[in-house]
Amino acid sequence: MDFEPMDRRNFLGIAGGALVCTIGGQKFRIDSKADLKKANAAYPVPPKVAAARNNTPISKAAIQGSRREYWIKAEQRRWNVVPSKTDEMMNQRIKKRVTGSTGTDVFAYRLYSKDFAQPLGPATVPGPLLEANVGETLVVHFQNECPLPVTMHPHGAFYSNEMDGAYKGKFTDPGGFVQRGRTVTYIWECPEGTQGSWLYHDHGPFDPIPISKGLFGPLVIRDPDEPLPDREFFLGFHSFLPGSNNPNLRQALYAINGKAYTGNTPTLTAKVGDDVAFHVYAIDNDFHTFHMHGHRWKENGVNIDNKTFGPGDSFRVRFIEDNPGRWLYHCHVFSHLHQGMSGWYNVT
Amino acid sequence: MDFEPMDRRNFLGIAGGALVCTIGGQKFRIDSKADLKKANAAYPVPPKVAAARNNTPISKAAIQGSRREYWIKAEQRRWNVVPSKTDEMMNQRIKKRVTGSTGTDVFAYRLYSKDFAQPLGPATVPGPLLEANVGETLVVHFQNECPLPVTMHPHGAFYSNEMDGAYKGKFTDPGGFVQRGRTVTYIWECPEGTQGSWLYHDHGPFDPIPISKGLFGPLVIRDPDEPLPDREFFLGFHSFLPGSNNPNLRQALYAINGKAYTGNTPTLTAKVGDDVAFHVYAIDNDFHTFHMHGHRWKENGVNIDNKTFGPGDSFRVRFIEDNPGRWLYHCHVFSHLHQGMSGWYNVT
Amino acid sequence: MDFEPMDRRNFLGIAGGALVCTIGGQKFRIDSKADLKKANAAYPVPPKVAAARNNTPISKAAIQGSRREYWIKAEQRRWNVVPSKTDEMMNQRIKKRVTGSTGTDVFAYRLYSKDFAQPLGPATVPGPLLEANVGETLVVHFQNECPLPVTMHPHGAFYSNEMDGAYKGKFTDPGGFVQRGRTVTYIWECPEGTQGSWLYHDHGPFDPIPISKGLFGPLVIRDPDEPLPDREFFLGFHSFLPGSNNPNLRQALYAINGKAYTGNTPTLTAKVGDDVAFHVYAIDNDFHTFHMHGHRWKENGVNIDNKTFGPGDSFRVRFIEDNPGRWLYHCHVFSHLHQGMSGWYNVT
Repeated sequence: MDFEPMDRRNFLGIAGGALVCTIGGQKFRIDSKADLKKANAAYPVPPKVAAARNNTPISKAAIQGSRREYWIKAEQRRWNVVPSKTDEMMNQRIKKRVTGSTGTDVFAYRLYSKDFAQPLGPATVPGPLLEANVGETLVVHFQNECPLPVTMHPHGAFYSNEMDGAYKGKFTDPGGFVQRGRTVTYIWECPEGTQGSWLYHDHGPFDPIPISKGLFGPLVIRDPDEPLPDREFFLGFHSFLPGSNNPNLRQALYAINGKAYTGNTPTLTAKVGDDVAFHVYAIDNDFHTFHMHGHRWKENGVNIDNKTFGPGDSFRVRFIEDNPGRWLYHCHVFSHLHQGMSGWYNVT
Repeated sequence: MDFEPMDRRNFLGIAGGALVCTIGGQKFRIDSKADLKKANAAYPVPPKVAAARNNTPISKAAIQGSRREYWIKAEQRRWNVVPSKTDEMMNQRIKKRVTGSTGTDVFAYRLYSKDFAQPLGPATVPGPLLEANVGETLVVHFQNECPLPVTMHPHGAFYSNEMDGAYKGKFTDPGGFVQRGRTVTYIWECPEGTQGSWLYHDHGPFDPIPISKGLFGPLVIRDPDEPLPDREFFLGFHSFLPGSNNPNLRQALYAINGKAYTGNTPTLTAKVGDDVAFHVYAIDNDFHTFHMHGHRWKENGVNIDNKTFGPGDSFRVRFIEDNPGRWLYHCHVFSHLHQGMSGWYNVT
Repeated sequence: MDFEPMDRRNFLGIAGGALVCTIGGQKFRIDSKADLKKANAAYPVPPKVAAARNNTPISKAAIQGSRREYWIKAEQRRWNVVPSKTDEMMNQRIKKRVTGSTGTDVFAYRLYSKDFAQPLGPATVPGPLLEANVGETLVVHFQNECPLPVTMHPHGAFYSNEMDGAYKGKFTDPGGFVQRGRTVTYIWECPEGTQGSWLYHDHGPFDPIPISKGLFGPLVIRDPDEPLPDREFFLGFHSFLPGSNNPNLRQALYAINGKAYTGNTPTLTAKVGDDVAFHVYAIDNDFHTFHMHGHRWKENGVNIDNKTFGPGDSFRVRFIEDNPGRWLYHCHVFSHLHQGMSGWYNVT
């Protein structure tokens, strides 16, 4: 397998462009479903993954303490990033040739009931919230139905090396290369010292394409001694890039929770007196800020209303709601704001 | 009104390019004064603003506690970003074709005496310092003389929803869409919990063009129990972009307080033993760092001499001056540094 | 001397391009050794530097307390950024046309024994670690063998104005303009309040070209009351840009300690129970994040596993190692990660 980093970089650039990868001397463009299938089939299985094939794909790792168990599939689906076709904040119509007329083919995590018996809702960008208390163990049964090998890689949790869900070339464990139709179980522990607002995301051999296409989600490890907030919001800052994501896209769409432009992004609600928490993370190629109108909070004793964060960063903002009205929350990078990264926060 | 985000994004990009907006099916380029006038005239007045037109434009909101009252106009003026035509730090002449031979048409806030009787100085980039103590209320009478609807939006202060100075499409309050010749009064409270170094800026329907053209300024809310520094400096990191700002500009100029390159940016002075404070904020499309030669300060107990911050971020650095000499302060992003973001700090 | 900032900016951009500078009306491209020599010869010596020429180039500044003395030269050498020609993480071959077939001409600091008697190892990117305890003084004898005037500028330390190693136009001190073959001695004090993880780098008249070519290194000022870690790692995040650095480079290479891609960047090792410290800094045109798999640490009481930092920033991460395995550390900006900014951290 021989990537041209130039092409990978171009994919990531604002200008977009299709991913080109060369596997065994053959060039693949992966714009379409058929392309993905071909690229996947041609991808060599790493040695440790191949050796494990005749065994059960389910991990034998021991699980300590009480467990939180999840069944999650990665699926390909059609996704409309700007369903209203407008930006309420700027009173603008967003043109079809910007958003793509028929939505975008994304990859999305989907929550299932025990033993993958039935879906508990649609596949979404971001994926379902994973949560545990300090002292518990997350047990995540993961099945891949996407046309590329993908994975789940957690931030913040404690896990043994083979549970990192990362492609690592010849050192790759089965959880770092999950082909279509196969299942693995990830065991992620949450001991004292792991509490926090985190995220999970694909970290497979096609990184970061599946992330850009939607394979990420929020993860929270709670301190059971800390009171729960009255309301909490999980906000993933991420961008859909033109090219491999959607050949119809004419520009990047800067999304919060997979949607772009006010009225499409989450409209959050709270009431005065609520103890509110915002769990915020970024997972694209850019740095962002989290800004709230009409509110501010303390960080290390200093009042702020705007916070810089980068790819892979995650944090929590928490305050007692004291100001009714229709407020904007947004990234203060102007080009991101005006390509979709804003939303309403309505307080009664 | 129908923006092409692509054009807006291009405006924001380093490559520049004129803003093109489509209002009622008609395309406008807003490179010139005449263009701005046409764009403004064509811009539909939001419903709540239209409904308020026959009433007084002055807010009826009650004001608690003692007030700090300001009269401020937004005006268009010619502004020379590199008056010396040189960068003292690099001993370089900055070519006319870079800076524009006749300066740049900017938008700038200007302080007036009571009831707008007379200007208290020229319109400047950034605008005048707004300050209050905790417990006071800022009352800002704002009149727009720019050829586009613009506003004033504060960071950090507490204000009711209709006082946010933000354009919000059909939800826009009168303070979020102030047309040429009209006046509004903003009431921004400064209760306990709002103390800090903040900024204010336009947040109207043409955001972020008026900001890039100069409509921003510093805002400080002081804790009256904290001793004032002996010297304090307010430093706004911002860039003038080619295109709508100035068709003559061949590249972005990275400015501190509206000027670019050492000898044009503020030359700060202090003496050994002074308790000095730097109030720093960024309000463009980029992330910056604040770096000082020969000095360092504590942040959460850690010594640093370089701090990363992003658009909308604001913070204060404070220390006892202990090192005489001619020092440089600058953004450590090299392309910003060498496009103007540096200055002298002279200590005797 | 008359730079066209546009060219300088292009140099810094991902697209690269040769630096063009105009000295006395003559244009110089500085792609080759011969070009550098010509540019150097043509560069006017600043007034204070010229006045000092007939005196000893060694500083007369008094030195307080115990000293740590270093002899360092800046030298030009051939440097292979991707010696293995592969990225182990992605199991990719990195093409010659990306990395340049014969390595890159870099500038590198090299440690010598007393009085420059003999080299104590090769010239490296980054340069040698400079270290001192609080209360000591760093005395750095610096000789330039590069074909351009270059310098050493420290972060964090306390120094008098003429010891800042910065070019400052007509205000330049001898330490801010060290021509080929000349020697200066820098005296940098480390009083209480300077302890921390820092860096040093060129800050001469061709800034930031020599930095991009490799002239930077780590500097640590230790608190003698704090126990030393069992293992510590110094990691410089920096990029080699195409153009002046190496006309063969087809794209930027995002390096850690001067090497790009896993298996070329430092492979760090530790064992469970070790008190490990990572001293991390960035010195290019970009913002980065420092992310570790399978680990996390506390920052101001909050658990994090990913930290945003910008050019000139430096910080320390320290924890007790508790997790054996082959782990990745990397920048979480995807385009940086996939252009080389990742490495192995192997714990036994």
